[in-house]
Amino acid sequence: MDSSGGVSPGRRRSLILLGCPEVPVQTSIALYLAYRLRERGDEVVVAGTGAALKLTKLADPLGHYLGETTNIDRCIASISEGKADFDQCFAFAHSDAGITYAGTISYISRALLFVLIFGRSAEELAETVEFDCRKLVAKAVHDPLPLKRLLDEVI
Amino acid sequence: MDSSGGVSPGRRRSLILLGCPEVPVQTSIALYLAYRLRERGDEVVVAGTGAALKLTKLADPLGHYLGETTNIDRCIASISEGKADFDQCFAFAHSDAGITYAGTISYISRALLFVLIFGRSAEELAETVEFDCRKLVAKAVHDPLPLKRLLDEVI
Repeated sequence: MDSSGGVSPGRRRSLILLGCPEVPVQTSIALYLAYRLRERGDEVVVAGTGAALKLTKLADPLGHYLGETTNIDRCIASISEGKADFDQCFAFAHSDAGITYAGTISYISRALLFVLIFGRSAEELAETVEFDCRKLVAKAVHDPLPLKRLLDEVI
Repeated sequence: MDSSGGVSPGRRRSLILLGCPEVPVQTSIALYLAYRLRERGDEVVVAGTGAALKLTKLADPLGHYLGETTNIDRCIASISEGKADFDQCFAFAHSDAGITYAGTISYISRALLFVLIFGRSAEELAETVEFDCRKLVAKAVHDPLPLKRLLDEVI
């Protein structure tokens, strides 16, 4: 991970934050999102738990889409110590733990924060968000297209 | 889908069969497997339920890995009518439904059949298999590497 904290002129730095990959749509949406952000010219870092990163990396064996990856806790420590920051963050949340990660980002980073809230309890979970962010909420479990459509509107 | 039923000289035709994508490892392993089979020169068809195909396609937006896709029921109908067949089949199963699909293939196709059995009840599920196949069994839910290792041994 770039530890300079700086932003190259004209290039957005975007963070994709992946919690526990319990819900099948996460890996697909993460790869699609990383691809779309890199396609528009962003520098993209994908931070995730061990399992989330294994799943995304294995689905992209030649590394066409994913870009740079890092451990989620190391990434958060790096931001909170002022060693790195991002212009935008897309945080995935299908449980309280995911919301907690997103909330942490909202407090320590200057990034414009999008929280993708999905899974069977997406709507109830979205109501627990009390920090400043833009929520993208879809009851998606197996079908990634509702979440994809919400992302397409903001990318 | 090629409906000639023929096999090009020197090229294996391989089928990847994806049931309901309840368990997160399926999408990642399917993309990795399609990539590895195509890399060795196989003609690969990925047949799946609607949701399984949406998840794998979205994770591979430029189509680097996946290759040809088709609906699972149409694919099975095509084989049972003698319009298509394969040299090898890799059937994914984390539930009774997945085992049923694999069993159907064992009865209608001449393909060498591998059944990837995964998820929390992988071992119990593997014991229900009574048709001729090679079982690859791993209790994988979030971590795809145990299943990847089993595949690497047979590819």
